[in-house]
Amino acid sequence: MIVSLALMTGTGVAQQNPLGAFEELTDTKPRDGKEVWDKMPAPVQLEWGSTDVRYKKWNVPSGLSGTHSLRLTAWKGERVNAQAVLWTRKDLKNLRLSVGELKKGKDVIPASAVRTHFVRYVMTDELNKDGQGGCGHREDKTQWDSSLVADMLDINKTLDVKALCAQPIWLNVWVPAETQAGVYRAKLTVSADGMEALTLPFEVKVTNRLLPAPQAWKFDLDLWQNPYAVARYYQVPLWSEAHFDAMRPVMKMLADAGQKAITASIMHKPWNGQTQDHFDSMITRIKRLDGTWEFGYVVFDKWVEFMTEEVGMHGLINCYTMIPWALAFDYYDEATNRVQFVYAKPGDDAYAEYWGVFLKDFVRHLREKGWLERTTISMDERPMEAMREAIRVVRASAPELKITLAGNYHSEIESDLYYYSIAFGQKFPAEVKKAREARGQVSTYYTCCSEAFPNTFTFSRPAEAAWTILHAVAEGYDGYLRWAVNSWPVDPLRDSRFRTWAAGDTYSIYPGPRSSIRFERLIEGLQDAEKIRILREEFAAKGAKGKLRRMDEFLSHFKLEAVPEGRKNPEEPVSELHEALNRW
Amino acid sequence: MIVSLALMTGTGVAQQNPLGAFEELTDTKPRDGKEVWDKMPAPVQLEWGSTDVRYKKWNVPSGLSGTHSLRLTAWKGERVNAQAVLWTRKDLKNLRLSVGELKKGKDVIPASAVRTHFVRYVMTDELNKDGQGGCGHREDKTQWDSSLVADMLDINKTLDVKALCAQPIWLNVWVPAETQAGVYRAKLTVSADGMEALTLPFEVKVTNRLLPAPQAWKFDLDLWQNPYAVARYYQVPLWSEAHFDAMRPVMKMLADAGQKAITASIMHKPWNGQTQDHFDSMITRIKRLDGTWEFGYVVFDKWVEFMTEEVGMHGLINCYTMIPWALAFDYYDEATNRVQFVYAKPGDDAYAEYWGVFLKDFVRHLREKGWLERTTISMDERPMEAMREAIRVVRASAPELKITLAGNYHSEIESDLYYYSIAFGQKFPAEVKKAREARGQVSTYYTCCSEAFPNTFTFSRPAEAAWTILHAVAEGYDGYLRWAVNSWPVDPLRDSRFRTWAAGDTYSIYPGPRSSIRFERLIEGLQDAEKIRILREEFAAKGAKGKLRRMDEFLSHFKLEAVPEGRKNPEEPVSELHEALNRW
Repeated sequence: MIVSLALMTGTGVAQQNPLGAFEELTDTKPRDGKEVWDKMPAPVQLEWGSTDVRYKKWNVPSGLSGTHSLRLTAWKGERVNAQAVLWTRKDLKNLRLSVGELKKGKDVIPASAVRTHFVRYVMTDELNKDGQGGCGHREDKTQWDSSLVADMLDINKTLDVKALCAQPIWLNVWVPAETQAGVYRAKLTVSADGMEALTLPFEVKVTNRLLPAPQAWKFDLDLWQNPYAVARYYQVPLWSEAHFDAMRPVMKMLADAGQKAITASIMHKPWNGQTQDHFDSMITRIKRLDGTWEFGYVVFDKWVEFMTEEVGMHGLINCYTMIPWALAFDYYDEATNRVQFVYAKPGDDAYAEYWGVFLKDFVRHLREKGWLERTTISMDERPMEAMREAIRVVRASAPELKITLAGNYHSEIESDLYYYSIAFGQKFPAEVKKAREARGQVSTYYTCCSEAFPNTFTFSRPAEAAWTILHAVAEGYDGYLRWAVNSWPVDPLRDSRFRTWAAGDTYSIYPGPRSSIRFERLIEGLQDAEKIRILREEFAAKGAKGKLRRMDEFLSHFKLEAVPEGRKNPEEPVSELHEALNRW
Repeated sequence: MIVSLALMTGTGVAQQNPLGAFEELTDTKPRDGKEVWDKMPAPVQLEWGSTDVRYKKWNVPSGLSGTHSLRLTAWKGERVNAQAVLWTRKDLKNLRLSVGELKKGKDVIPASAVRTHFVRYVMTDELNKDGQGGCGHREDKTQWDSSLVADMLDINKTLDVKALCAQPIWLNVWVPAETQAGVYRAKLTVSADGMEALTLPFEVKVTNRLLPAPQAWKFDLDLWQNPYAVARYYQVPLWSEAHFDAMRPVMKMLADAGQKAITASIMHKPWNGQTQDHFDSMITRIKRLDGTWEFGYVVFDKWVEFMTEEVGMHGLINCYTMIPWALAFDYYDEATNRVQFVYAKPGDDAYAEYWGVFLKDFVRHLREKGWLERTTISMDERPMEAMREAIRVVRASAPELKITLAGNYHSEIESDLYYYSIAFGQKFPAEVKKAREARGQVSTYYTCCSEAFPNTFTFSRPAEAAWTILHAVAEGYDGYLRWAVNSWPVDPLRDSRFRTWAAGDTYSIYPGPRSSIRFERLIEGLQDAEKIRILREEFAAKGAKGKLRRMDEFLSHFKLEAVPEGRKNPEEPVSELHEALNRW
């Protein structure tokens, strides 16, 4: 902590909101002494590692395969990951990575399908002391252990690496859908100024199966987007062209994970400003002096059009929220020339009036835009009576609008909820799930700060991200929800901790945008979920009961009952299932 | 102080924002002991007093005339004041006042022309310790002496008076213009439960001269109005019908003093929120997402129409301000859904753009409303370069608009200023004053917290209010300006102190509305100024040089050179001139 503070103050001021090169923080964890590094057979070494491991920065990596070759298997259209580790006992200047095209005779997977990244170290913390999750305030950072952890996949093309450090390298190949089946070979080359280039060969075996493009995936993924964080971090005016330019690649990265739902905020601080950058209303409400309301949809429209047309998200437009944690509803007041708040709770006349008038106009507008079918009024868990009242107001003023909830399971209102995401550990009763399917309703689950396992904190084991998705499949949910994907803390490239909740809870895509081990492993789970769906359909059509049973056996390791076992060793069931899916 | 705090807390909580009956605070000043009160020839006494005196609450009044009759002299159309004092050594319940019509044979001045008031006691403080004025912060009230002072003229019709207290009574007769000259007689009756009514006869001698109605007065009075204070104190929504209902009598009281100029605010906190209730913009500015501006005049129009048509103020519409003390200019921003600020100083491009675009639209709007001739862009004293830049922007974008300044005298810009009010003690050079008259420009002076004398703090001597106006006449100014007439502090009916400046600086009209000794004596000065103008014209037309010279002699006591003498004894020159004006 002392060191990181030093970086933030005095002469060593860290660059604010970096987008390009940046220096990592440092920690005070024990590190291998020079005597350990001196045992290296060469000053710099490079080997294939595992995507399950967050290699430590200050230690000679252990548990490596010792072999220099690697075979990955992929369906056509699938993305596959690998991790290599370099470690050095001398300073390296301008370390850089390259992979050419992958070749199989005359057939190639082009170099443009390959991404290489330096895996960068960010500050993380830990679970709560009782090991029971990561919720609660953490303003006093000294109360939690802090350490550097390998998570972010950098986009910078060169990096200086200090002596006595490990530097992991991430490899991702997105096999084009039109690739011919067969084994493609290439090598990863790592060079640096004054260093003889090191290489690691690898091959990708492309099977004859086709994974559809993410836009066609059936798994319902909802990771909430935060446009306000992007404007702040990139220091661009909200909703300006520069803001959309900054958001475009972030949101495309998310679309490439199969995201289709758009997060929209229709009031000030729908979540009481719980993120570093609070959400504001994308819809303006002006109360004229004569008491009439004027609603403005310019920002909302621009955001939805951008996400739909430019990013390609054609799913729900989830509007937060009619029942925020703090029941204060904003508007611009012509009389006072100020933003004012209506303080009203569901059930109050003022609540019904504020929302009723708006919802009628909103429906009119959505119909005009052709978005009425897609738009939902979205709620978080609130007292039952409040949720019921909100539903009543929607039903009365805008029965066309869908309603969603992320919260606990409540039998009283489940049939009202077009989309219902329930907390990890809770289940839709079988007949309810069936009835919801019959009604065309979507039933998912979510994780947040509550879960010690599975989770995607920056200190969570990489395989947990895949486990999280496979849990949804195993338990028969239609998808998975997480409340934040880019709600960046103050200094997200260097420090994943936040004033509340365990580090990394608020984001898995970094500014740049930069992916993360967590985000890539989440995509792996999403791909596997899609592959399971495809294979199950095929097996069912063919009457391959043995294979269906075998699939169920694999999936049994991701059920609620398997959590204790999964927490001890999430990697094994994930990789066993992953490999099986490639064999079938 | 301890007592007043006790009133505000615990079980003895004072009624918040009273409009009707209320209890006065109390002080810890020395008071006459029972032995003094026991010398009273009767348990309750009533005598005519003087309008020059703030009678002490806790003392047997001294210096009374001892006679029970009173003769006032008035022009037709003039208002005349008198003060009686009641003092008692027993508790009085439901004290009440009455005056019937004033009679002269068959001729009458109707009872409706007569006002009677209990003079109420409010908490005041004192000048700064150096005796040099009342400017500066006073948050720590213990640093200034505090005492009750008779100032407010209550509108409540009954009052309980405790034993061993004085209770002054104010009488005002507004002689109707159509009154026949002659002596009118009536009596003031004071009664209370279980007390034999006490009476004081009085007469008003009406001369044959006519004082025009206040709307026709030539003296340029500008006391700044604060609509925001009214909304807060009356607890009514800003610009609602209830708000206008509350303001109507306040503003009419001011119009009856000859006020014609309307105070309008065209930005947030033109004076950096220096009053208890800061001014906000009466004009809305919405910055659309596409960068265009939309200006809203609904509030501005409603205020100006109200003041013009309902209250009868047909003078300047003074718009504050383009160069506020804090150079932050507000607008409602569609992108962020919040009120934002442009931070720009005169000379900046952003300043010229913010104001230039607005002023063009403002001129268009004012022309439509027929107000272009009346409207001014009003400034306070700012650095010369800032004032020049602001003038440049007005000249460039809206040359039709008049410009006003209240500040120090600056020869560099005086010709640009249609209305120019300079600080007490400063003078327009004779040739400049003449040139300004020739150009039809108005030249006045102002007082504020700076002046130990003359002033209208609640502890100022009542005659100072009249002296202030007569000073303007004596020095050849066209009028007088004061920056506040109803910028009420937190509890204006009970406590005239404010967090800054000597008590009473911020208001002379109380909620209710209630007049004050200060306000009535100011009107006396204004009437005398008008009478001087009329008489001078008459004397000049008649070539009555002796009378003109005599007038100048009277007025010499109100010149700057006469301040030391005036401070010692302001009453004598005021009353001598007043009487002379009635004799001529």
